[in-house]
Amino acid sequence: MCVDPAVYRLFCKFKMKDNINSEKRVTLSELDLPGDLHDLSLKQCRLLCTEIRNLLISTVSKTGGHLASNLGVVELTVALHRNFNSPDDKIIWDVGHQSYTHKILTGRLNRFQTLRQKGGISGFPKPDESEHDSFISGHSSTSVSVACGFAEAMKLQGKDNYAVAVIGDGAMTGGMFYEGMNNCRRELDSNLIVILNDNDMSISKSVGSLSKYLTSLRNTEKYLNTKRAVEKGLVKIPFIGNPTAKGIKTVKDTVKSKILEQSNLFEDMGFIYLGPVNGHSLSELEEVMHMAKSFHRPVFIHVKTVKGKGYLPAEKNPGEYHGIPKFDIETGNPEVSANECYSTVFGKEIVEYAEKDDRICAVTAAMKYGTGLQFFHNRFPERFYDVGIAEQHAVTFSGGLAAAGFIPVFAVYSTFLQRAYDQLVHDIAIGGLHIVLGVDRAGIVGEDGETHQGLLDVPILTTIPGTVIYSPSCYEEMKLCMKKAFYEDKGIAAVRYPRGSECPDTDTADITTGYKFRHEGGDTLIVTYGRLYNEVCKARKKLKSEGISCDTLKLTQIYPIKPEIISKMKEYEHIVFFEESMGAGSISEKTGSMLAERSYSGDYSRVTAENFVKQASVMECLDALGLSSEKMAAYIKDRISGNGKA
Amino acid sequence: MCVDPAVYRLFCKFKMKDNINSEKRVTLSELDLPGDLHDLSLKQCRLLCTEIRNLLISTVSKTGGHLASNLGVVELTVALHRNFNSPDDKIIWDVGHQSYTHKILTGRLNRFQTLRQKGGISGFPKPDESEHDSFISGHSSTSVSVACGFAEAMKLQGKDNYAVAVIGDGAMTGGMFYEGMNNCRRELDSNLIVILNDNDMSISKSVGSLSKYLTSLRNTEKYLNTKRAVEKGLVKIPFIGNPTAKGIKTVKDTVKSKILEQSNLFEDMGFIYLGPVNGHSLSELEEVMHMAKSFHRPVFIHVKTVKGKGYLPAEKNPGEYHGIPKFDIETGNPEVSANECYSTVFGKEIVEYAEKDDRICAVTAAMKYGTGLQFFHNRFPERFYDVGIAEQHAVTFSGGLAAAGFIPVFAVYSTFLQRAYDQLVHDIAIGGLHIVLGVDRAGIVGEDGETHQGLLDVPILTTIPGTVIYSPSCYEEMKLCMKKAFYEDKGIAAVRYPRGSECPDTDTADITTGYKFRHEGGDTLIVTYGRLYNEVCKARKKLKSEGISCDTLKLTQIYPIKPEIISKMKEYEHIVFFEESMGAGSISEKTGSMLAERSYSGDYSRVTAENFVKQASVMECLDALGLSSEKMAAYIKDRISGNGKA
Repeated sequence: MCVDPAVYRLFCKFKMKDNINSEKRVTLSELDLPGDLHDLSLKQCRLLCTEIRNLLISTVSKTGGHLASNLGVVELTVALHRNFNSPDDKIIWDVGHQSYTHKILTGRLNRFQTLRQKGGISGFPKPDESEHDSFISGHSSTSVSVACGFAEAMKLQGKDNYAVAVIGDGAMTGGMFYEGMNNCRRELDSNLIVILNDNDMSISKSVGSLSKYLTSLRNTEKYLNTKRAVEKGLVKIPFIGNPTAKGIKTVKDTVKSKILEQSNLFEDMGFIYLGPVNGHSLSELEEVMHMAKSFHRPVFIHVKTVKGKGYLPAEKNPGEYHGIPKFDIETGNPEVSANECYSTVFGKEIVEYAEKDDRICAVTAAMKYGTGLQFFHNRFPERFYDVGIAEQHAVTFSGGLAAAGFIPVFAVYSTFLQRAYDQLVHDIAIGGLHIVLGVDRAGIVGEDGETHQGLLDVPILTTIPGTVIYSPSCYEEMKLCMKKAFYEDKGIAAVRYPRGSECPDTDTADITTGYKFRHEGGDTLIVTYGRLYNEVCKARKKLKSEGISCDTLKLTQIYPIKPEIISKMKEYEHIVFFEESMGAGSISEKTGSMLAERSYSGDYSRVTAENFVKQASVMECLDALGLSSEKMAAYIKDRISGNGKA
Repeated sequence: MCVDPAVYRLFCKFKMKDNINSEKRVTLSELDLPGDLHDLSLKQCRLLCTEIRNLLISTVSKTGGHLASNLGVVELTVALHRNFNSPDDKIIWDVGHQSYTHKILTGRLNRFQTLRQKGGISGFPKPDESEHDSFISGHSSTSVSVACGFAEAMKLQGKDNYAVAVIGDGAMTGGMFYEGMNNCRRELDSNLIVILNDNDMSISKSVGSLSKYLTSLRNTEKYLNTKRAVEKGLVKIPFIGNPTAKGIKTVKDTVKSKILEQSNLFEDMGFIYLGPVNGHSLSELEEVMHMAKSFHRPVFIHVKTVKGKGYLPAEKNPGEYHGIPKFDIETGNPEVSANECYSTVFGKEIVEYAEKDDRICAVTAAMKYGTGLQFFHNRFPERFYDVGIAEQHAVTFSGGLAAAGFIPVFAVYSTFLQRAYDQLVHDIAIGGLHIVLGVDRAGIVGEDGETHQGLLDVPILTTIPGTVIYSPSCYEEMKLCMKKAFYEDKGIAAVRYPRGSECPDTDTADITTGYKFRHEGGDTLIVTYGRLYNEVCKARKKLKSEGISCDTLKLTQIYPIKPEIISKMKEYEHIVFFEESMGAGSISEKTGSMLAERSYSGDYSRVTAENFVKQASVMECLDALGLSSEKMAAYIKDRISGNGKA
């Protein structure tokens, strides 16, 4: 069912909530928000929007964070809080990185400068931060399912509140969106509203058929056409008064036969479709939201926004300002230029292989730049696939390529790989297909917090028979691992590496064995892998300066664990395993069990993450986990002295 | 773009591959299949279809298996193998349990009676069984992604073959289908064909908006309308000769303005839509496939079939004949009537709780009967949710309900829970929400083989902080676990139980501690949980009769592991842990590591699955893993004698 605001306005005498007499300029700090928003004039709200934009730009320039997406939804967020009553009405932000304005408007103005810092406010919605943050959201495409749950709960509880999902067109490419949409229309009387924040961008440019489809919808002129039709008397207005679903339906039936012949995707899925409306016009937004509330049926509102709106560098280059480090407001230049990092080294190295081997393909789930695959895309566009935010498809599609004789590389952030667990098991491993995974942002990622830490890839990948996992501790080692992953391994071969750059002074493993012992002559062995090796080296030096000699074992191929490693470990009186992973299912748990199965009776202990890790800088997070060199050294001293022993 | 077969036939002089002179009756066994199919007349093919149906019914009546879905696709499969050249053309069966006719036609006629048995042919496509089985498929909604991979590979390799995904309307409710569809139209020149086998059923009745939408499509009369329009001269036929995409497009543009005003969902997603056609008419199928091949663009064919076609009991009750044990062909009665089992006890017990507590809701992903939730549905329809084959949505939707104060129970097969791993982590656990999981078919499931074994739920659930897992060994214990899961636990509380009925003679655990020691006075401890406890008891008795006393430890709350358990385990010289789970990430791995961390120096060993487990009866599978009482007893004797020690 499709209804146009113009038709609506004509027959229901819509009254804008605009106190036109109120000309007094107000500022955020003098308001009691979000409640006071209801009493402001549109003009006052527009001024507030400007103030919010300035605050967003100045804060993110200092803290880093998501800028472009937040600048795009300032008016939308203000309109939401004017037309809905949070927290009784539930606003669910999809991939909640665009919730900054929402945070500013819901009691976190004064703390906004602590954004994404240790102890500060999160860059994503967090219910334990505010009752207005109705649900955790850091991963994509979950909002419609969550809103379905809230809407059903309201129905069961007899509450006449609204559940509003706000989702970007990028997040629409994830299968969960579709699963949620398919389950929205349980019965007609549901106060569920889905708002599409359509900026024609996910993180990079949106991809796939849906993107093309949205473009066509965006460019329809339903609004004008309908208005014209109404003016010409082509459309009969059935009654004057308050709108009801029935009334609207009558209008629609009339309108439909004259002008709006085509139903669209969202109507096909059982929604009333409203839009497209200008997402930077408070009056249009106000009108469409008022209208949506009147149906008491699932409504889909299509809002067009401009990512980066109001800050020229971000408008021009929204991809770069999606997630950005600190930057200079005047020039728009980020503080740290895009240096070489694990992602870019990985991305460039694949190109090297692909030059020589035309079986190599590269796949990303909307993270072309994040994973360094832009180099591959530029060089081999025909073998490059950006599938949208669709990790499940990415893996199974890679399986199809592999079954046909190709060697696909799926480069993906550790935290998002979680979405494709079943596909790795069912579509790749059972059939023994060979694919390469580039597991980016493995380990602690820092400021993005709990939802984005890469602490589960090792626990889940190790559950899949036939999987080989590498965790290099420098670029050179990563390249050696990639070679093995491409040409020596079968099944799933995963190379995992952290966010950021290599640490200096690391020594390369003997990649033929997949591990490296370094002997200092002590009876204590420190085991680790990946980025943490640098911290271990520092700890070893510190301990040596205090007269304590420790040997180290750096794993490069971390799984499967070679039995000879266990034999060598057994020679030590103390073994401490430091691991940047969730502890349950980790490598150190496996080596622990293997030691028990080999009747090791010495002192084995391990330091890992045992719970979700809150936002802070990477080093702050590692320190909190006991994985900084200082904490490591202290821990080892404790073990050796026998104090720490269980 | 929408083209009707009637229009097509009129202007392209379609010639049916029907050797009308060939009247000779042929039988399956005398043909060289699938090649010979191309040379048969339609009449001969129809007779083959009858022969195939009889074979399906007689075989499945003896072996058990999927019947109704296979009876529905006999003509479709014959038409596929007449119009495509497998294995050069790739046919990808979604949730491949409807591939029996395909197997019969591709070299497995003689082995068909070994269906689903140990060493026999699989009930699902398996590439290592035949080159005509292009991809593993036991889980739903993967086919379009796989076909995308094959189609892209063909393009890169310059092959002019076809990738054909055959998907049911049930599988269409999974998000992966949508992700795949969104990625099909990379460029126009793709030989990708998606065939919707629309029988208005997934396993139970299809649900959601899409089901309603398909019903409306099914009932359109495009075929007749267009034919009539052509006859009336409303449609201009632009040329006579071979069809090309351009030609068709012209027809379509002409037709469209006259008759086919509405585009549909699949066209909106970038496909050429053909249909709906009668899936039991070989001539209609032949025609539409011929047409689809001519476009060299992604085509979506909508085929209407009747689940259970040709066998009255299955036509009448397709849900019951979806997966069925052995049955009597005359009466249609299954050999074993639906006895009480873990699923029904679980389902009935939730109803008991829901009677007293209106916060309890029940969620299933298209497995209402399989998980015993029909009782809940009957009693509390307003609190029951069948979300389709959409495990991701099921979990996150449950999260929404939980955030609003409800206690949702998601009952799901262990193997399908794998689909919702990220949702459990991100949408439930990080926010500390409380949901109850009924993990059905946990452990070995037997005849369905690798894709369906429930061996990964423990390894993945234990990676999620705050999760409690129970594995009862009898109904009574399950009920006690459910009580704790509902009211004592926070976070994710999972109760896992096997397919089938409880074993007799098991003793109930002291559920307040979550474990039970049974002392016989030996220095050997056997640890286990769940169904396996029965085998352990038998092994213990057998060993005792040979003079070997073993104590046993049965875990009921299997995770988190209580430290006191480790303390008690340490008192034994030999510890053997038998576990019906994949070994990596299992409980026995965790207790192993905990023992090492507590400097246990005795003889610890564990017996688990180390790889995917092939089809056979449950007991055959357990025996192959060393988890039958006989193998257990032998293993223990070996350990005690020191032979088995590493």
